[in-house]
Amino acid sequence: MKIVCKKYNLLKGLNIVSKAVPAKTTMSILQCILVDCTKGNIRLIANDTEMGIETIVEGDILEKGVVALDAKMFLDITRKLPDSDITIETDQSYKTSIKCNKSNFNILGKSGDEFSYLPEVDRNDYIIISQLTLKNLVRQTSFSVSSNDVNKIMTGIYFEIKGDNLRVISLDGHRISIRNIILKEETDDKKVIIPSKTLDEIAKIITGESEDEVNIYFTDKYVTFEFDDTIVLSRIIEGEYFDVDRMLINDFSTKISIDKKEFVECIERSTLLVNEGDKKPVIFAIKGNTIELRIKSTMGSMNESIDIDIEGDDLTIGFNPRFLLDALKVIDDDVIDIYLNGSRSPGIIKDIDVNYIYLILPININTVD
Amino acid sequence: MKIVCKKYNLLKGLNIVSKAVPAKTTMSILQCILVDCTKGNIRLIANDTEMGIETIVEGDILEKGVVALDAKMFLDITRKLPDSDITIETDQSYKTSIKCNKSNFNILGKSGDEFSYLPEVDRNDYIIISQLTLKNLVRQTSFSVSSNDVNKIMTGIYFEIKGDNLRVISLDGHRISIRNIILKEETDDKKVIIPSKTLDEIAKIITGESEDEVNIYFTDKYVTFEFDDTIVLSRIIEGEYFDVDRMLINDFSTKISIDKKEFVECIERSTLLVNEGDKKPVIFAIKGNTIELRIKSTMGSMNESIDIDIEGDDLTIGFNPRFLLDALKVIDDDVIDIYLNGSRSPGIIKDIDVNYIYLILPININTVD
Repeated sequence: MKIVCKKYNLLKGLNIVSKAVPAKTTMSILQCILVDCTKGNIRLIANDTEMGIETIVEGDILEKGVVALDAKMFLDITRKLPDSDITIETDQSYKTSIKCNKSNFNILGKSGDEFSYLPEVDRNDYIIISQLTLKNLVRQTSFSVSSNDVNKIMTGIYFEIKGDNLRVISLDGHRISIRNIILKEETDDKKVIIPSKTLDEIAKIITGESEDEVNIYFTDKYVTFEFDDTIVLSRIIEGEYFDVDRMLINDFSTKISIDKKEFVECIERSTLLVNEGDKKPVIFAIKGNTIELRIKSTMGSMNESIDIDIEGDDLTIGFNPRFLLDALKVIDDDVIDIYLNGSRSPGIIKDIDVNYIYLILPININTVD
Repeated sequence: MKIVCKKYNLLKGLNIVSKAVPAKTTMSILQCILVDCTKGNIRLIANDTEMGIETIVEGDILEKGVVALDAKMFLDITRKLPDSDITIETDQSYKTSIKCNKSNFNILGKSGDEFSYLPEVDRNDYIIISQLTLKNLVRQTSFSVSSNDVNKIMTGIYFEIKGDNLRVISLDGHRISIRNIILKEETDDKKVIIPSKTLDEIAKIITGESEDEVNIYFTDKYVTFEFDDTIVLSRIIEGEYFDVDRMLINDFSTKISIDKKEFVECIERSTLLVNEGDKKPVIFAIKGNTIELRIKSTMGSMNESIDIDIEGDDLTIGFNPRFLLDALKVIDDDVIDIYLNGSRSPGIIKDIDVNYIYLILPININTVD
């Protein structure tokens, strides 16, 4: 195999596919990026069997062929080469030279025989959304998936399509995040649980421009994202997702409207007296037209009050400050509404048009002081 | 004690003095910052017994007093408070409230009784240099102090003043870094070994502006840096420094002139095939008007040549690429001269005016291939 391509193009492609190279693995072929030039273009492929990425690099093929190169070394070398033409050449035994100007690297590649290519998938069933929208949806939901594997379904993000409505949901047992968007076109109803890891990696790769699009193809076992010259294929998580509608209460006994920035800064200050990992609740005392935040720990105590609009009853309730911050940080509104039902029911942050719903369970506060 | 000051001023002061708070210590008083308002101004002091820092914060004293507050908590709280007036008040039992707008923190302080104040030092013997110069001198030498404590002297940076010449030296057994500058005024000869840790912290605090100055006071046991509203006092390292002049050879059998940027990039590429911590030498083959860099490891091999000017004999020599990079990165010249004396003598990088000398020992290469 012999190819020539610009450093910029090669590096761009390697940065994309290396997202599917596992950090640790016992199978050394998984740590490789496959360079496949058998089909008329230069394709880079990485595949950790859960997620696979394939992208096309602009360049010239002087001699067809295939080679698998260690991802880290290939990326490191390319990154450090001058901004110029890079020539990659392999011989029969996969000895590979990477040349650029007067610099010449020789490393040992592998045959592509053991490498698993991405499976061909059916492309009949799909939706199209903008890269900006997908990037936002991931950012606004992926923080509340479960970080432990005990319940695999909780590590995924649920995509539910009904007509022209896409609802994206994540939950971890303490909170639920929901985002709704309207698709440009109606399509068949679909329900699919996508590993949040895949979505996080895709969010890093896509440009996030509103004019750039992503095609998302659905099949029984896989979901495939196609954009620019890149395909990302991911296994879906099997099983039935939780019935979140049962958990969302529309009634409320207290509704408050609060300035988001002021609220975030105040909660951040309250966390200063809590050790990382400690689940100490911040107490929110809603009374008259203020909310007072209070926290007491071995390090000291803190209190601060914020002016709010209130509808309904006074209330004292405890929340994990981290969970509130996570949700507030992905909401773009300047003023947010929180709906409450006594101190033992979840708090729900949502907007009037229900573009977003963030539900957070309260922490029991025995000593309401 | 009761004081009021702007958040900006308090935070600036805390950031400065916290440089003298040790990361780990069994003596909890060392992890505190002392707020001393007994002498008509608000002084913040931290002192880890090797290095002490004192700075003055602009603000109003409503009630005189002293309190020692946990440095981390004090800094974290101040950082997160709004940009407004901060009121700090302590009672008889050192319960301390920190108030800003509607935010109110209560933490427990300590009396200052156990706290070691900075010793008063004599201010007769001193030099004045610009903050920019001091910052540069530290950056250009501190990288080559020894990182282990076996020989304490090697962990310090040597300041040697003769007339109006200040020579700053560091060494670690494999290399020597020397910088020379001319002082504005002549002064008595001085020799002092300053802990590199102190100098690194000072370099972080000072602005690095050429018009801002630092006064450096010398006494038997201490060196004191005074700038802006801040005093940094450091113990000096006792002992006789190495006679580096004996190690500097002025003869050479080979002299090369090389483009620094090209050389740095080429060495950086050669390190890609070396595992961190591995002391594998890069081989430099000087021949005709080129230098060829070669390296071979279990990962592969690399070679690259650069055009150079050469005076004297051809030569093949091995160096630790890290040591070369460390020196090259603190040299501002575009073209550098390297003086060599066969493959077993040190390489010396220096400029014609001897503003800098960087000596690096070669690594023995048995198999000159």
